[in-house]
Amino acid sequence: MKAVGICGSDVHYFREMRIAHLVVEEPMVIGHECAGMIEEVGSGVKHLAAGDRVALEPGISCRRCHRCKGGRYNLCEDMKFLATPPVHGSLANQVVHPADLCFKLPDGVSLEEGAMCEPLSVGVHACRRGGVGPETAAVLIMGAGPIGLAALLAARAFGAPRVAIVDVDEHRLAVARSLGADAAVPVSTRPEDAAEEVARIRAALGGAEIDVSLDCAGFSKTVATRPGGRVCLVGMGHSEMTVPLTSAAIREVDVVGVFRYRDTWPLCIELLRSGKVDVRPLITHRFGFSQQEVEKAFEVSAGPRSHQGHVQPLGS
Amino acid sequence: MKAVGICGSDVHYFREMRIAHLVVEEPMVIGHECAGMIEEVGSGVKHLAAGDRVALEPGISCRRCHRCKGGRYNLCEDMKFLATPPVHGSLANQVVHPADLCFKLPDGVSLEEGAMCEPLSVGVHACRRGGVGPETAAVLIMGAGPIGLAALLAARAFGAPRVAIVDVDEHRLAVARSLGADAAVPVSTRPEDAAEEVARIRAALGGAEIDVSLDCAGFSKTVATRPGGRVCLVGMGHSEMTVPLTSAAIREVDVVGVFRYRDTWPLCIELLRSGKVDVRPLITHRFGFSQQEVEKAFEVSAGPRSHQGHVQPLGS
Amino acid sequence: MKAVGICGSDVHYFREMRIAHLVVEEPMVIGHECAGMIEEVGSGVKHLAAGDRVALEPGISCRRCHRCKGGRYNLCEDMKFLATPPVHGSLANQVVHPADLCFKLPDGVSLEEGAMCEPLSVGVHACRRGGVGPETAAVLIMGAGPIGLAALLAARAFGAPRVAIVDVDEHRLAVARSLGADAAVPVSTRPEDAAEEVARIRAALGGAEIDVSLDCAGFSKTVATRPGGRVCLVGMGHSEMTVPLTSAAIREVDVVGVFRYRDTWPLCIELLRSGKVDVRPLITHRFGFSQQEVEKAFEVSAGPRSHQGHVQPLGS
Amino acid sequence: MKAVGICGSDVHYFREMRIAHLVVEEPMVIGHECAGMIEEVGSGVKHLAAGDRVALEPGISCRRCHRCKGGRYNLCEDMKFLATPPVHGSLANQVVHPADLCFKLPDGVSLEEGAMCEPLSVGVHACRRGGVGPETAAVLIMGAGPIGLAALLAARAFGAPRVAIVDVDEHRLAVARSLGADAAVPVSTRPEDAAEEVARIRAALGGAEIDVSLDCAGFSKTVATRPGGRVCLVGMGHSEMTVPLTSAAIREVDVVGVFRYRDTWPLCIELLRSGKVDVRPLITHRFGFSQQEVEKAFEVSAGPRSHQGHVQPLGS
Repeated sequence: MKAVGICGSDVHYFREMRIAHLVVEEPMVIGHECAGMIEEVGSGVKHLAAGDRVALEPGISCRRCHRCKGGRYNLCEDMKFLATPPVHGSLANQVVHPADLCFKLPDGVSLEEGAMCEPLSVGVHACRRGGVGPETAAVLIMGAGPIGLAALLAARAFGAPRVAIVDVDEHRLAVARSLGADAAVPVSTRPEDAAEEVARIRAALGGAEIDVSLDCAGFSKTVATRPGGRVCLVGMGHSEMTVPLTSAAIREVDVVGVFRYRDTWPLCIELLRSGKVDVRPLITHRFGFSQQEVEKAFEVSAGPRSHQGHVQPLGS
Repeated sequence: MKAVGICGSDVHYFREMRIAHLVVEEPMVIGHECAGMIEEVGSGVKHLAAGDRVALEPGISCRRCHRCKGGRYNLCEDMKFLATPPVHGSLANQVVHPADLCFKLPDGVSLEEGAMCEPLSVGVHACRRGGVGPETAAVLIMGAGPIGLAALLAARAFGAPRVAIVDVDEHRLAVARSLGADAAVPVSTRPEDAAEEVARIRAALGGAEIDVSLDCAGFSKTVATRPGGRVCLVGMGHSEMTVPLTSAAIREVDVVGVFRYRDTWPLCIELLRSGKVDVRPLITHRFGFSQQEVEKAFEVSAGPRSHQGHVQPLGS
Repeated sequence: MKAVGICGSDVHYFREMRIAHLVVEEPMVIGHECAGMIEEVGSGVKHLAAGDRVALEPGISCRRCHRCKGGRYNLCEDMKFLATPPVHGSLANQVVHPADLCFKLPDGVSLEEGAMCEPLSVGVHACRRGGVGPETAAVLIMGAGPIGLAALLAARAFGAPRVAIVDVDEHRLAVARSLGADAAVPVSTRPEDAAEEVARIRAALGGAEIDVSLDCAGFSKTVATRPGGRVCLVGMGHSEMTVPLTSAAIREVDVVGVFRYRDTWPLCIELLRSGKVDVRPLITHRFGFSQQEVEKAFEVSAGPRSHQGHVQPLGS
Repeated sequence: MKAVGICGSDVHYFREMRIAHLVVEEPMVIGHECAGMIEEVGSGVKHLAAGDRVALEPGISCRRCHRCKGGRYNLCEDMKFLATPPVHGSLANQVVHPADLCFKLPDGVSLEEGAMCEPLSVGVHACRRGGVGPETAAVLIMGAGPIGLAALLAARAFGAPRVAIVDVDEHRLAVARSLGADAAVPVSTRPEDAAEEVARIRAALGGAEIDVSLDCAGFSKTVATRPGGRVCLVGMGHSEMTVPLTSAAIREVDVVGVFRYRDTWPLCIELLRSGKVDVRPLITHRFGFSQQEVEKAFEVSAGPRSHQGHVQPLGS
């Protein structure tokens, strides 16, 4: 392992020893955003060799159930996922991982960029599920945290002509602007402001209707999306969100969710190679792999503003 | 006009003079489930002639907006819809209607069956939007009122291998059984019964997972549907429904709505012609077209059990 | 193994020792349409037990490549397929097969019906790829051999309102009629008859346009299909077929192919269980599993009229 | 009218007085790639006013048939299309055109760019039909004429990571390179070179498999496309093309066609506004609107190298 990101779920496990019904009952290594260098490959592996730099897709599905066979392996009920109890994660010197889930990084894509394929994958899968593309003339992203920013980068790579992003935090919005948001609009959490906020968002997009909303913050405002459009719920966390749905239903606004990602690494690596996506601004801090450094990394991650980006412990 | 059905919205307008923000401000003819006989056609009309028996699609879209051009004309914002104020409905001796929205009935399909294309269309469009077909091994319909029964008939015609239906009313369930439901399961409205009810439904379907749920009653229980499945909200009425969505989102259960229908008449007529669907059991009462008879028809429709089926005033 | 069908490719290998570039270089067991009884299961297998009656899906994909992960495992380049050299087939007393490719037969579905899931799967996958359903008002099947008849059964199960089938052989057409074809029309192979034949087919379907054509005979007549429709090429065999495409392209008639099938066994078994499909008429002869009987079976299969159906050697 | 492009079909009508079965029997104005300024609008038109600069979509569909209602109005059989006999075209001082087919140009998009929405629309619709996007990792465009170049611009806007283009003409390839092709590979028309050429194309794309081919030249080489990929036949002209299909069919390579376009103007204008597409390099010559100038324009268009781009007569 040469680069491992720390994301919100890692911090959550670190502090609470659980996420919802997933309880850490025995000592468990965390970390699931990672890249490293191949030390050894099995005899049947042809596409990798010792010394190759690779990014790891962290979920190992059963490959045999109806969901796996149908191409939706992220929904496999026998998934073994790095750092989801009781499976150890990758914040370790060495891990053993299936060769088909190790993706070779081309020259020009660094190991820490490789580790960022994981959060980028969430944005990519959200764009897929949301049907984002050149024909979704206006896309609205709710929430400018790490997932929202990954969704922003992905939406631009998918050809969305105009992307607006909203958040309550002006600092986050400034980051979003620097990453290419066409509009970054401050919003409140007061329900009574919703109508006026939608009007401001649309004005910022030149009056366009919102074709797709990617909700990365649990805002649950389906009302902003046009008839026949789509709302994609991304990174819903672990608390139940209740959404008024009648107005969405009778306007045929589809509400779809995202669970992790599937088969996104090749695309993410291509986006990084070609320069269409630059994930480096999402990395806010860097630490070494010593005990002391990693502890500091978690301290910083758990602190305020940690939500701005990803903390990247780096191998020596 | 030779046959006009009375549905819940007609009764609602009759009694309340409004549905939500749609207010009847001047005297308005109601009725939108209808069939009749052609008296006269415009000079450019080739496919119809005086004397033809036709079913009417009641919504006239603008044919020019982005939605109309994209094939989703049911979402047209300039729709003129029979008996939606201020547009007059079809419970009249004569109506003028665009020729392309008048569909010729083949021999063997009666005028009252023709009028029933309207409620059947809701079921057909719900099955489309829900992705119902031979590969959705188990379909659950929530609510055995007229819309739920239309959805049941449509789901069978779409090739769904097993269809379960639930309701609080045992009489409705009996009707559903007679129309071919593979399972008809009584449920309560108590949230604490939900888990046990889902277990009973699945047992009644031979243990199958629910691939698609068609919610025709506002039950909003997305929990019954398998990961990667679909929930279709049908006939949501006019009150806001709030749905817990996190569990749906993280299992990638898509939640989609239905607004009326689009281009369903040819299919409905084909289903009636071939005998794949028999709508006649949905017609519970028949009345003449005299003032007195129509008044009685509304009285019956507004009474108890009216929800069991459609009341069909018949032309002389 | 308790029931093994003999299909055209088996006979072809038997007589020619090759199909195209696939050459039988060492003695090879043939047979890939099969069902049997479980003798023993691996320690991790939960859904099967000794004594269970199962149908076998004959292709074992790598489960690791991009195609497998994307749900199109039938296109896997590392597929191991029963009786495709150098992999042995299933016309044997015992075979070892992955548990997830053994599908339990419910009571009421016989072993020989189980073996017929294989040819039925070709028809099912063709209907999927062709987009057959209640909205494809008229489906045309070209060729009434075993694959054409399987496609006919599948198309009806998928809800196609009207299905026409054409062939040069009146006997085959009679079989198709008995299996429920709405129209069974004799055709020639003379190009100059094509226009008149299309007119006759459409007349037999009540004047309908052809929405989908399933070409199970290499007729390559895309001209019959309406603008915006679909042609599905099924069981193209091994000789190159050249098709005039301009007229299809400029009418946006999609031309799609079928390679075997994917994840069709659960649906086929459901169709057999529910009685929506009856494959028994496709079985024309039955033989025992002795050396002598099997030799006779191949003799019959290779003879005239063998194309009418499937020859089913049965286990003792 | 302020800007009208001249394309191959205009020249063809000019010289031959027919294209296939479409015969010019009476004097007919040609021209269908056009933009102009609004002089007057009908009383019901709200979104346009005198003085507005607009691009015209040249096809007027019936808006009433099954195809129009289903969103595929480009396949309407009652289409009235500018400069398709007997409908007059737009190389005129004034035309009367439906308001919903006149699209307002934003500041910064010139009238001649507006006229280029027509050829760009062919490329956009080809990318749609071909499923081009960030996940089609390698796209191959066959033919670097005006349509091929429009497809190249569109494919990049749709997010295709790598686009290769092939042609027999080195000059055209140089233009393609300057427009952003990742690889521009000279090919012959000799069938025996095909295998080696495919190898060279793939090498130029870094070894990638071809996911989608857009055939803008009638090359009909489906062999280059990977299993499960897609071939889109664009601008097939009017002579019958015969394609070997078995190898495509058994690899489930879908072959789809394109007929003009539908509802592409808003997207094209957005692509021009945002600068994601620059059509100006496709305009090779400019002429005035006088009799003499237009004659010269046709002379140039009909000459050698005219295929490099579009000739743009400009209004005074």
